[in-house]
Amino acid sequence: MLIECIPNLSEGRRPEVVAAMAAAISAVPGVRLLDHSSDASHNRSVFTLVGDAGGVQHAVLALFERAIAEIDLRTHRGEHPRLGAVDVVPFVPIEGVTMAECVALAKTVGAAVAARYGVPVYLYEEASDNPARKNLEDIRRGEFEGLAAKMATPGWTPDFGPAAPHPSAGATVIGARMPLIAYNINLATNRLDVAKKIAAAIRHSSGGYRYVKAAGFTLDDRGIVQVSMNLTNYEKTPIFRVFETVRREAARYGVAVLESEIVGLIPSAALNAAAEHYLQIAGFKADQVLEYKLRATANLKSGI
Amino acid sequence: MLIECIPNLSEGRRPEVVAAMAAAISAVPGVRLLDHSSDASHNRSVFTLVGDAGGVQHAVLALFERAIAEIDLRTHRGEHPRLGAVDVVPFVPIEGVTMAECVALAKTVGAAVAARYGVPVYLYEEASDNPARKNLEDIRRGEFEGLAAKMATPGWTPDFGPAAPHPSAGATVIGARMPLIAYNINLATNRLDVAKKIAAAIRHSSGGYRYVKAAGFTLDDRGIVQVSMNLTNYEKTPIFRVFETVRREAARYGVAVLESEIVGLIPSAALNAAAEHYLQIAGFKADQVLEYKLRATANLKSGI
Repeated sequence: MLIECIPNLSEGRRPEVVAAMAAAISAVPGVRLLDHSSDASHNRSVFTLVGDAGGVQHAVLALFERAIAEIDLRTHRGEHPRLGAVDVVPFVPIEGVTMAECVALAKTVGAAVAARYGVPVYLYEEASDNPARKNLEDIRRGEFEGLAAKMATPGWTPDFGPAAPHPSAGATVIGARMPLIAYNINLATNRLDVAKKIAAAIRHSSGGYRYVKAAGFTLDDRGIVQVSMNLTNYEKTPIFRVFETVRREAARYGVAVLESEIVGLIPSAALNAAAEHYLQIAGFKADQVLEYKLRATANLKSGI
Repeated sequence: MLIECIPNLSEGRRPEVVAAMAAAISAVPGVRLLDHSSDASHNRSVFTLVGDAGGVQHAVLALFERAIAEIDLRTHRGEHPRLGAVDVVPFVPIEGVTMAECVALAKTVGAAVAARYGVPVYLYEEASDNPARKNLEDIRRGEFEGLAAKMATPGWTPDFGPAAPHPSAGATVIGARMPLIAYNINLATNRLDVAKKIAAAIRHSSGGYRYVKAAGFTLDDRGIVQVSMNLTNYEKTPIFRVFETVRREAARYGVAVLESEIVGLIPSAALNAAAEHYLQIAGFKADQVLEYKLRATANLKSGI
């Protein structure tokens, strides 16, 4: 079982504090800290760790302990909006784990954070059943400075913990979401209006697909335009459907797709779904992928 | 580094002997025996193991030691053609290893087998530079009973070891090959002639793609026909090109592709290549696959 967790901490100016937090995560058995980076102007750090449910839970709780000891939101300043010392904690299913299990983990960790540290917790994205409290920006609006007033407003009782902010650590937003795919399609034209029209056609906010954010840009150095996208749930809005829709919309203007590009990482399931679609593969199962099968057997044998 | 090795042994009737061979493989550090199966009428067993180059090499040598002690080709009978006690040993690159490294491994193991056990070794498939000695069937023609005469014929000096068979263990064929993909395309018709014409169009033996074996069949229970294929090198003859060719050829007869199916396992690279092709992804790299990246990092950290 492999769960990714990307805690966002409201501390990006004291390297020794961030290093101690990284060490606390790395010390947890069954967890690997893949990356951490800090931004001084945001005064914020992002940690990327992976592990099984138990390991990731222990790492997050260890992080809370240090964050509450070290961070005081009453004196914290930075460009990035934030509600709490540990600001946001998303859990992302990677391999051998379902979204439902990540939602359950978010709730378990949320309850534990509230019980141990007295920090109120809002659930978000897939872990929230409340449409008004799914979107991180909606929950965080007003920031730490407006939190006490917001929490006293109807509809803003937290999912776990006291109905008032922790004095120094504020509140925390914990949830589960799919891995993001940053995906661009380059068009064989310099017409920015075409890229913008296609972006508007496919993005959720203007009537397009539910899990697509998109904008049109010019790539000046190449003399072409790009439809730049974030795909926020590749299972429900698959990459091949978005690609084919962009291609059809572009053809409407006599424009061809030049190429597409994946920025950063993509889950293998998203690529497999595209292969399965175009090759019309019936009855395909993930454990038909050779490497997956070999790993599953290896893990079984070594008891991992 | 993950190499698959599938030794074929000329013993399928004495379970205790096969079990001892399986135990000898499993005892080698860095090697996992994924599967073994025996066929009494073939009097033959197939082992599937994975590991790094050193581990797989030790496992094969351990297998030779037991095979030479236990198997005598002079009294061996079975339906399956065979040259030796350890009949065939292919090495297959799976992850983090190139074909060139598997070829080098085949040569190292071949030399070691000849030096330690006095068994002559023929290289085959990618490990052989001799067009007449690439194909397993060509090397094995005449079987153990005709081996002494064959080895005395010009062009049949082995790649390693003596120019005469080992008295009881015969000779061994060792090489490197790509993973096979068993791939079928079902057509929305009951016309067997169409399936057979398409199979002939795409298979190597009748003028088609270099790494395709194909035949046309009727699926009686469904009232449709199938083009059944083995893709023997998915890098050089990719699955998407074969699929599109079948689709075009079928359209020529007014027939549509109903679906395709992958039988058994498929390397993720073969699926990724299809996604990359249809989505026109430029500059895609294997380490953009999330799970691959996470595993690579995990291996680095734990020193595996």
